[in-house]
Amino acid sequence: MAEEEVKVFRSWSSAFGLRVIWALKLKGVEFDTVYEDLSNKSPLLLQYNPVHKKVPVLLHNGKPICESLVILEYVDETWKQFPLLPQDPHERAKARFWAKFGDDKVLQSIVFGILFKEGKEQEEEIPRAMEILQHLEEELKGKKFFGGEKIGLVDLALGWLAYYLGIIEEVIGLKLIGQEKFPLLLQWIQEFSTAPIIQENWPPRDKLIAKFAASREAVLARGLK
Amino acid sequence: MAEEEVKVFRSWSSAFGLRVIWALKLKGVEFDTVYEDLSNKSPLLLQYNPVHKKVPVLLHNGKPICESLVILEYVDETWKQFPLLPQDPHERAKARFWAKFGDDKVLQSIVFGILFKEGKEQEEEIPRAMEILQHLEEELKGKKFFGGEKIGLVDLALGWLAYYLGIIEEVIGLKLIGQEKFPLLLQWIQEFSTAPIIQENWPPRDKLIAKFAASREAVLARGLK
Repeated sequence: MAEEEVKVFRSWSSAFGLRVIWALKLKGVEFDTVYEDLSNKSPLLLQYNPVHKKVPVLLHNGKPICESLVILEYVDETWKQFPLLPQDPHERAKARFWAKFGDDKVLQSIVFGILFKEGKEQEEEIPRAMEILQHLEEELKGKKFFGGEKIGLVDLALGWLAYYLGIIEEVIGLKLIGQEKFPLLLQWIQEFSTAPIIQENWPPRDKLIAKFAASREAVLARGLK
Repeated sequence: MAEEEVKVFRSWSSAFGLRVIWALKLKGVEFDTVYEDLSNKSPLLLQYNPVHKKVPVLLHNGKPICESLVILEYVDETWKQFPLLPQDPHERAKARFWAKFGDDKVLQSIVFGILFKEGKEQEEEIPRAMEILQHLEEELKGKKFFGGEKIGLVDLALGWLAYYLGIIEEVIGLKLIGQEKFPLLLQWIQEFSTAPIIQENWPPRDKLIAKFAASREAVLARGLK
C-alpha cells in the first residue's frame, strides 16, 4: 500500500473520538493522533470541520471527514479488512438503525436526561432510560456483541456505554442497571470493555470522573440561573 | 426480476415518508403504499417498528426497515439503478454528513425552533436558522442539486425544505429566506420542487397549511400549561 496520511483529531475524553480510534486499530490502519484542547480549538480543526467545529475529524490524504458515525462508514468503505458492517443490505440497515438509536436515544437519555439533570427531572428520566436500554437488552439476545460473534459498527457506536455508564453512575451516585433486568447488557459491557484494542484505549477512569463531575456541575449551575 | 413485496408505511403529510417514495420512484421500483393514521397506528406498523412506532417503514419481502435515512441507504444498496450516493468514499461521506446535518440542524431549527415556538424564543432562533441555512447556500455553490447535476441522497433528505419551508413561512407569517442572501437555495427549491417525480408527490398545500397550523397551536398550548 502506498504511504498514506491518516490523522485523527480528537480530545482525550470524547467517546466519539474513541469510535474512530477503535475502528482504525481494529483494521490495522496506522494513523497519527492530534489531541485538541476543546477550550482552545486549533485553526486546523476549525478549517477541517467549519460547520460543527467539533472533534473527531479524520483526515485522510488531505481530505477531512466529520461526524463519528459518518467516519465509521468511511473507514469501513476505505479499508476492507475487519468489516464493521455486515454484507447483507438488511443486516446493514439494522446496524445503522441501532447506531442511530444509540446517539438519538441512549446517549440523549443517559447523558442529557440523567447526568446533566437532577431532582425531579432526573427521576422522571430514569424509567425512560430503562425502557431505552431494554431495547438494547433485547437486541443482544443470542449474541455476544451487537455485531454477532465479532465487534461491529453498533458495538463501536455504543461502546461509550461499556465504560462511561459506570462513570456516570458514580458521578450521580445512582446505580442505573443491574444483573436482574440487564444480564445481557452487563455481559456485553464486560466483553466489550475488556476486548483487545478496546480495553487499551479507554481514558483514565479518575480523570473522566473528575471531568464528568465538573461538566455536570457547570450544566446544572447554568440551568439554575 | 422475481416478484417482490415492496410496501411503504407512511402518513400523507410526513416528509420522512416522501424521502422513501421519491427514492423508490426515481429508481423505478414498484411498491404499495399503506397510509397510516398516526392517531390510531395499525398493529402492523407497531409490529414492524416496535422501537419508535413511527412511519415510514419500508417492508421488503417481509423484512422491515425503519428510519428514513437508513431506508434511503438500504434502497440505494438494494436497487442499483439511479444511484443516490456517489461512488467515491469521500463523496459518500460528504453526502451522509449533509443528510445528517439536515435532520440534526436544519429540521431542528426550522421546525422545533421556529414553527413550534413564538415570541422571544422564536426571534432568538431565527439568526441561528439563518446561519444553518447559510451552510446549505455554501454547499450549493457550482451545483444544481446537492447531488450535483442529478438529484441525490442529500436532495431527498433536505427535500422537505423545498416545499414545507414556504408552508411554515405562511403559518408563522414570516418570510425566512430571500433572494439576496439565499439565491442558490431558492434556485434549488425551484429546481427540486418542480423536478419530475418530486413534484407529483407533494401533499396538497392547503391541507398541509391547516395541519401545520393545528400542530403549532397544540404544541404552543402545551408549552403554556
